[in-house]
Amino acid sequence: MDAAPPLSPTARSTVRRGAKRARTDRADLHAVLDAGLVGHLAVVLDGAPVVLPTGYGRHGDTLYLHGSTGAATLRAARAGAPVCFTVTHLDGVVYARSAFHHSVNYRCAVVHGAMRPVTDPEEQVLGLRVLTEQLAPGSWDATRRPDRKELAATAVLALDLTEASVKIRTGPPGDDERDLSLPVWAGVLPITSVLGRPEPCPLLPPGIAVPARVSGRRW
Amino acid sequence: MDAAPPLSPTARSTVRRGAKRARTDRADLHAVLDAGLVGHLAVVLDGAPVVLPTGYGRHGDTLYLHGSTGAATLRAARAGAPVCFTVTHLDGVVYARSAFHHSVNYRCAVVHGAMRPVTDPEEQVLGLRVLTEQLAPGSWDATRRPDRKELAATAVLALDLTEASVKIRTGPPGDDERDLSLPVWAGVLPITSVLGRPEPCPLLPPGIAVPARVSGRRW
Repeated sequence: MDAAPPLSPTARSTVRRGAKRARTDRADLHAVLDAGLVGHLAVVLDGAPVVLPTGYGRHGDTLYLHGSTGAATLRAARAGAPVCFTVTHLDGVVYARSAFHHSVNYRCAVVHGAMRPVTDPEEQVLGLRVLTEQLAPGSWDATRRPDRKELAATAVLALDLTEASVKIRTGPPGDDERDLSLPVWAGVLPITSVLGRPEPCPLLPPGIAVPARVSGRRW
Repeated sequence: MDAAPPLSPTARSTVRRGAKRARTDRADLHAVLDAGLVGHLAVVLDGAPVVLPTGYGRHGDTLYLHGSTGAATLRAARAGAPVCFTVTHLDGVVYARSAFHHSVNYRCAVVHGAMRPVTDPEEQVLGLRVLTEQLAPGSWDATRRPDRKELAATAVLALDLTEASVKIRTGPPGDDERDLSLPVWAGVLPITSVLGRPEPCPLLPPGIAVPARVSGRRW
């Protein structure tokens, strides 16, 4: 098997600001994407950028997105226009001794490319499966699969992970040497996303327990 | 005082997909923005969209963003090019009885416009203050303020909140009537962002306790 190509093969996917935070390992890209539920998809509509949150799923080095066949952003993306898709995790607030050096700890993946409309029925189902499993692991096998009408109403698009970059910031603030003696607390306030207690649908018939795929889910 | 104008005065800021989730109250916009730490800023660079996470602060109906004067995205935004800025909160995974109706509960604010470079020194400091306070309440007064060199290296940009939309999804899945009798659990798994235990900077001199602005912070 060939080695996976490194990240950042083009100018626009090469991290310039804060280059010491850049990662070039494809495993880091996969890890940041796999840890997320929603990314932000940007397209250009009438010359102006539009960025909206959307779910996604990954299969190898292909990212799948979906949406209503009527959505303007997806129609724009379907036409092969360039897109940018970004997934960000916030890991902490970085308190510095100066206002200037306040920051956040984060993991961020940015993918550039043009989306490919998925027309093959098998690949459409694959895309919907990884999308569903990214959002709700175990749900694809446990729930009713999409029928023909639902498949027809759903545009599935593929985005290749060739052109991508990853930035990760960790650790304490990067204060100036001159500020280290100031009597000001500095450090990191960690942020974590936690899953709460499952809230059953009010229309659920009696006797249907919360399944392990929900109650046992960790993030 | 005049009443605040409603949201969504233009075609592109009028929610079309899932219109029942749209909010038109300006207070909802402020609430979604005020609850966030980081948004996603999209600009067009060489004809392609680029979307990156960035901090922000709000003062009335003006949003302030900042960044290095050298960053390409901010240089593009400074030239008056159109931008889109989106803040999204994930509130839960919506488990449905069908794969098709899986969803997320969320709050999302989308702002369209062109950024105005802030050149007035007083407004630049105001922008940096609200940016710092959004990220770390209490830090502006407790830490060293930006000096002349830092101010010169920081571009502050203002984005008017005139053209904006808010979408909020809450509640259980919207399953089809025909699926309600399926023996499949359905409901919501809530997601919350929580703040952890403060991690002091290793370079902190002894005797500096965690201040209440950090230890008492709630989100």
